[in-house]
Amino acid sequence: MQDLLKRIDGLLKEKKFVEVRNIVAEENAADLAVLFEELFGEDYEERAEFMILFRLLPKDLAAETFAHMNSDMRKHLIGMFTDKELREILDESFIDDTVDIIEEMPANVVSRILKNSTTGERKAINEILRYPKDSAGSIMTIEYVSLHRDMTVAEAFDKIRRVGVNKETIYTCYVTENRKLIGVITVKDLFTAEEDDKISDIMETHIISVDTHEDKEVVGNMFRKYDFLALPVVDKDNRLVGIVTFDDAMDVIQEENAEDFSKMAAIAPNEESYFRTGIFKHVKNRIGWLLILMISATVTQIIINKYEAAFAALPILISFMPMIMDTGGNCGAQSSTLIIRGIALDEIHFKDFFKVVFKEFRISIMVSAVLAVVNGVRIYLMYERNFLLALTIALSIIATVIISKLIGAMLPMLAKRVHLDPAIMATPLITTIVDCCSIFIYFNIAVAVLNV
Amino acid sequence: MQDLLKRIDGLLKEKKFVEVRNIVAEENAADLAVLFEELFGEDYEERAEFMILFRLLPKDLAAETFAHMNSDMRKHLIGMFTDKELREILDESFIDDTVDIIEEMPANVVSRILKNSTTGERKAINEILRYPKDSAGSIMTIEYVSLHRDMTVAEAFDKIRRVGVNKETIYTCYVTENRKLIGVITVKDLFTAEEDDKISDIMETHIISVDTHEDKEVVGNMFRKYDFLALPVVDKDNRLVGIVTFDDAMDVIQEENAEDFSKMAAIAPNEESYFRTGIFKHVKNRIGWLLILMISATVTQIIINKYEAAFAALPILISFMPMIMDTGGNCGAQSSTLIIRGIALDEIHFKDFFKVVFKEFRISIMVSAVLAVVNGVRIYLMYERNFLLALTIALSIIATVIISKLIGAMLPMLAKRVHLDPAIMATPLITTIVDCCSIFIYFNIAVAVLNV
Repeated sequence: MQDLLKRIDGLLKEKKFVEVRNIVAEENAADLAVLFEELFGEDYEERAEFMILFRLLPKDLAAETFAHMNSDMRKHLIGMFTDKELREILDESFIDDTVDIIEEMPANVVSRILKNSTTGERKAINEILRYPKDSAGSIMTIEYVSLHRDMTVAEAFDKIRRVGVNKETIYTCYVTENRKLIGVITVKDLFTAEEDDKISDIMETHIISVDTHEDKEVVGNMFRKYDFLALPVVDKDNRLVGIVTFDDAMDVIQEENAEDFSKMAAIAPNEESYFRTGIFKHVKNRIGWLLILMISATVTQIIINKYEAAFAALPILISFMPMIMDTGGNCGAQSSTLIIRGIALDEIHFKDFFKVVFKEFRISIMVSAVLAVVNGVRIYLMYERNFLLALTIALSIIATVIISKLIGAMLPMLAKRVHLDPAIMATPLITTIVDCCSIFIYFNIAVAVLNV
Repeated sequence: MQDLLKRIDGLLKEKKFVEVRNIVAEENAADLAVLFEELFGEDYEERAEFMILFRLLPKDLAAETFAHMNSDMRKHLIGMFTDKELREILDESFIDDTVDIIEEMPANVVSRILKNSTTGERKAINEILRYPKDSAGSIMTIEYVSLHRDMTVAEAFDKIRRVGVNKETIYTCYVTENRKLIGVITVKDLFTAEEDDKISDIMETHIISVDTHEDKEVVGNMFRKYDFLALPVVDKDNRLVGIVTFDDAMDVIQEENAEDFSKMAAIAPNEESYFRTGIFKHVKNRIGWLLILMISATVTQIIINKYEAAFAALPILISFMPMIMDTGGNCGAQSSTLIIRGIALDEIHFKDFFKVVFKEFRISIMVSAVLAVVNGVRIYLMYERNFLLALTIALSIIATVIISKLIGAMLPMLAKRVHLDPAIMATPLITTIVDCCSIFIYFNIAVAVLNV
């Protein structure tokens, strides 16, 4: 990649455009999009070679590369395109990619794109745009191969040959009757059938499909489960309106994971990569939760104030606070992470509430016993055989671990129950909640055992 | 699903096996695997209906369902199979699924599987088993369609028709010469070509492939980038040895994500789902990091002991400890999560070290300024206009946030540099490290500003 970069950079500077064209024509679109980013970095708007290089690409490769670029570059390109060029790119693009572009662009660019689309395309674009964000309808494409039940296998092959080049996938074909989806057949099935077999005899009629309004996370989970290449999307009357292809499903899975990672670290989700997100956006994404969590920590502060007498009498108590708080936070984080993941992957449901709580309870008893013994012995040996101090810490650890694991397990499920995203009940919030509990437990046990 | 479950349960009890067979024959293998789990739960080993239901499945569906089941059920089934049944299941399975099964099974089961395989299969299985765990070789299948450069399109179609039914994917075909990979062609390309076109004229020769020893995480990232259906796997002499299909790549992406989620919550990675993991396994997966982190917290404890005089003189200082520690932990977690994800997705590399550090530095200044002002004002108003106390907390927050974000950004990159998994530098460890720093900073600032 670095070699290619230098070579093209050199050739562009020497204006050897024919050679450049021959090289780039052989490359993969995804690689070319990366090459554009690496070659021009942040100043692609100022450098004339950027447009020159893009115009050297063969038409279909240009459209594909365009689809792989980041939205800023695409916006710039659309601004530079002649109407003819825009028309050509749109011709070579699949409808779902065009919709993705439209969703990211400012109004004036959108109207230019729509002006350069055919009436049919415009209708299709508007239809997809109408579906709710994050629905199956919003990520589908309408470019699929549909067959008729009375066709023979040979006729089906003819149709695929005729229309296939413009379809996003030809490998799964859909049999419709009055627009209703009545069967599915793969090209592999067609290959293993006889030329004059009738489609209706060999098609699969047990169809797995999704509703247009289904959450795209569910669609992603279905792809993980069934290993499909494409999934049909139907309206409430079972009419076929589009398909979701596996590459878009992969993107959805990736996005959902990225979102969960962000939420679990108290960061507002962000679709752009780390470097492509500006400083101010980074600050904005991070400051909200930090403020909320900082203010929540005030509760712990008030609890500590109440026990001033206890630690004034025995200052050593203070030094164990971080260890107890951290252990509680870590235990809560473990449970909440596992439960949040289980919910996201559709493995844990609200009906499992008591099963999960009981399981975490048993786990927490064993975990806390080990931690309490190890730490109790350590403190007993380190602090002049002070048995009561060791006992205080050991008991505090047991109570803290049990409470933390139960809170960590319950809150994500309760969040899901009231239709909040379980991922907000992740490490940072759990830690803050658990802090209050563990400090409260700790000082109460200290007062009881040590009589301070 | 629940209806189906009840219906089959009822029919099995009434011994209406023919009806059951007709129903299940229409179902999808992935759904059937779930049905087996829901129907028999934990006591499938005791219930005779389990084997009866499995034996009612048509052969090919049985093999597919088997591949979707969890390893305990598979182990049980293999134990119950006659040699003939085992032979049939293996016949209908793809080699990569068989290898997956072998990797999970105890030695006596493995030898039974190998005994019931053909010599060719045994050779293929052993070849795949020889590749390092987590390598491209270990997840590939050898069931692909290979074509010859001199074939015509019509001849290629004939070959696909002849051998396709036993191949995991037919949609991407590979052109080899002396076992070397010289071209790739998709069925879509074949459909748009003329019947008498020569393969060598229309095949793609700019081939994207992976080495057998490449890390499977890299393979997953390539699928995300290129949207391929399959990726050829070659040895060091560019000989084609197998392919990785998109469904296996999706599993890899899923596993890698699950692993990162676990590590980021200080849990040892685990391939089984939450419910299918036993209590003791859960305890074992969680206790290790908890112990390490608990012992590490001792450092913070020692630091606090050193400043006993400071908080004895001004006990109010103690109540701010959790807020400062938590804010530091949360800030560090935000940075480390973003950097760990960036590294996993191949967006951030070690060469970006200073770029990342500088970016986080600028972000941390802005974030800390906001947090310091909000909290400073709050404390000034709440604590009898104690300006020096407010100043102490505000300065401590600024220093803590900056240090936390830098630590959170640097440690994952340094871990990667010395070939450790960056994900271990996640929230829990970062929190513990940041705790020490923030407590140290806090008391030093308090001593300097407040003269305690």
